Amino acid sequence: MPVPTPALSEFSLIERFFAHATRPGEHVALGIGDDCALLRPPAGEQLAISTDMLVEGRHFFPNVDPRALGHKTLAVNLSDLAAMGAKPLGFTLALALPDSDPAWLAPFAHGLAALADRHDCPLIGGDTTRGPRNLCVTVFGAVPGAHALRRDAAQAGDDIWVSGTVGDARLALGALRGEWPLTEDDLVQARRALEWPEPRVALGIALRGVARAALDISDGLLGDLGHILERSGLAARVDVDAVPRSALLAAQPEAIARRCSLTGGDDYELCFCADPSARDDIGNIAAKLGLPVTRIGTITLRDTHRARVDLHDRRGTSVDIDFKSFDHFQ
Amino acid sequence: MPVPTPALSEFSLIERFFAHATRPGEHVALGIGDDCALLRPPAGEQLAISTDMLVEGRHFFPNVDPRALGHKTLAVNLSDLAAMGAKPLGFTLALALPDSDPAWLAPFAHGLAALADRHDCPLIGGDTTRGPRNLCVTVFGAVPGAHALRRDAAQAGDDIWVSGTVGDARLALGALRGEWPLTEDDLVQARRALEWPEPRVALGIALRGVARAALDISDGLLGDLGHILERSGLAARVDVDAVPRSALLAAQPEAIARRCSLTGGDDYELCFCADPSARDDIGNIAAKLGLPVTRIGTITLRDTHRARVDLHDRRGTSVDIDFKSFDHFQ
Repeated sequence: MPVPTPALSEFSLIERFFAHATRPGEHVALGIGDDCALLRPPAGEQLAISTDMLVEGRHFFPNVDPRALGHKTLAVNLSDLAAMGAKPLGFTLALALPDSDPAWLAPFAHGLAALADRHDCPLIGGDTTRGPRNLCVTVFGAVPGAHALRRDAAQAGDDIWVSGTVGDARLALGALRGEWPLTEDDLVQARRALEWPEPRVALGIALRGVARAALDISDGLLGDLGHILERSGLAARVDVDAVPRSALLAAQPEAIARRCSLTGGDDYELCFCADPSARDDIGNIAAKLGLPVTRIGTITLRDTHRARVDLHDRRGTSVDIDFKSFDHFQ
Repeated sequence: MPVPTPALSEFSLIERFFAHATRPGEHVALGIGDDCALLRPPAGEQLAISTDMLVEGRHFFPNVDPRALGHKTLAVNLSDLAAMGAKPLGFTLALALPDSDPAWLAPFAHGLAALADRHDCPLIGGDTTRGPRNLCVTVFGAVPGAHALRRDAAQAGDDIWVSGTVGDARLALGALRGEWPLTEDDLVQARRALEWPEPRVALGIALRGVARAALDISDGLLGDLGHILERSGLAARVDVDAVPRSALLAAQPEAIARRCSLTGGDDYELCFCADPSARDDIGNIAAKLGLPVTRIGTITLRDTHRARVDLHDRRGTSVDIDFKSFDHFQ
C-alpha cells in the first residue's frame, strides 16, 4: 500500500549513520535538516551538477561489500565532476532501502564518508525511503565557465589521452560472471578496480585551460570517446596497442585484454583531448600527480564515408572490431 | 545479472521524451548531454537544493495517471524551494523504470514538463536505468542568503500561518485505501489535491523578508510544525478549529476532518511563522496571489513540562490528541 511518508525516519537515519559525512564546509551555508540545503557557490564560477542512480542487481551485486558500494556511489559522481574540471562542493544522497539494517548502513556510510572527506565534499541533503535498493547521488562542483572541459570542445589535430589504465573493472566483471577464468589473486586485484574506482578529481582540475574536451570512461573507452566525437562533430584515429593496460590485464589473452580495455565499462579514468602544444604541460601534470597519462590517438576531421573511430595497431595495420558483438550490455 | 551500463539509452530516452522540458534558461550554461550540467547562479545569492525520491507502491499507486505522477514528482521538489523562499533555476531527474513504454513515458514527461515550464525550471541533467520504478528529482533554486526561510528562525510571539487548505490529500488516500467512504464526485475532487499538488513558489518568494521561518506540509501539519519548533527550540499554541479546510473536508465527519487536516500528509501548502507586525503585509500578499492564508496559532517559549504543541479548539478548550494513534504511517 502506498503511504505518503517515508517509513524510515530520514533525519534520525542520516544523523545516526551519515553524521561524519555532513560536516560544514566553506561553501555550505546550511546542511541537512531543512527543506533545502543552501550552498554558497564561489563568486564568478559556474556550478557543475551531475546525478547518477545505482540499482541493485544492475549496477552492483546484492552481496557487494557495502563499504565499497558507499565509496563507488560517490566515486562515480565525483568522476563526472573530474571530467568537467570542477572542484567538489557537496552532494545529496537519496536512498531507497528494503530495511534499515545497521550492519549494511554503517559500512556503506563509512565508505561514502571516507571518500567525501578526502575530496572535501560534504553530504548536504538527503532523502530516505523504503523500497528496492536504489542509491541516487547528485553532486555539485565549481568551475570557471571558460575552463569547463566540455565534450563538444575537441578540435581536429588534438591528441587523445587516457589517464591510468583501463579494462581491469571489466576483467573482474567477466570473471565474476563466468565469462572467463581468473586466478583468485588476479580476481582480488581486478575487483579493486571494479569496486574501488578512484575519481580523477585532481587531474580534472589540473587540466583546466590545458585540455579542451574530456569525459570519464564509464561505458567503455571507445563508446565514451564516441560521445566527444559526436558532440564535437569530429572523428578519431586510435592506436589500440597504445591504450594503457595494467600488468594484470596485459597478462591476459589478447582478445580478452583488447575487449576489456577498449569496450569495458566502469573504469572512471579520464579521456581528454588537448592541443599537441600542451604535451609538456600534460607530462608535468601527470608527474606531479603521480598518475600516468597516455596518448592513444588523434582527433581528425569527420569523413562520412569512414567509421567515426579509425582503429589501428602499433604497426599501423587497420583493426576491424565488430562493436555490436562487444556491446552485449545494451 | 549486474551490468555496468544502463540498458535504456539515457540520451535517446531523454531526447525523445523530455526534450520539451530541457529548454535553455538564463541560468543554464550547459544542459543535458555532458558529464555535468553547468548552472550560472545569480550573483550574490545562495543556491537552495533539495532531493526527493518517489518509489512505486510507497509514494504512488502503480496505476496512477503518469501525467499526474510527472507533475507531482517535480511539484514536491518545487515545494521545498517554495518553503525556502527560493526561485527555481532547474532540476535533474534520475529514473529507474522496468521498461521504456512510451504509453507511460510520454504522459509522465508531459506532466513534468508542463509544471517545469510554468515555473521556468528546465530539466538540466538526468540518468536513466532499468529497475523497479523509482523517480529521483534534485531541484535547484536561488535565494538571497539573508532571506532564506529556514526552519530554525521562528521566534516566540510569531503568528503561525497556513496557506490554502490542508487535509484533502489525506481524505483521498483514506478513501482509496477503504478507511472511509467518499462519494465518487467527492473522491474526484479530493484526488486532485493528492495527485496534482500546487507548489507555493510565488508565495515563498513573496514571503522573503516578511516571514521568519517556513516549511512545506508534506508529512502532516502538526508533525511538520514540530520540525520548526524543534529546530527553533520553541513551542506553539494552535487552534485546531482555525486550521483551514476545504468545503469538501469540512463536510466530512468531524473526526475524519480533524485527523486529515492536522496529521494528513501530501498537502504541500506552506506553514510559516511571522511577526504579528507583518499581518497586513501577509494579507496583501495573499490578496495579490489570490491564495488564502490563515492564522492558526502562536509560537511560544518552550516549557519542558508541557507538550510542544498545545492544541485548543475555537472555545479555548484544550484538545487532547493521541498522536501515536494518528501516526500509523511510521
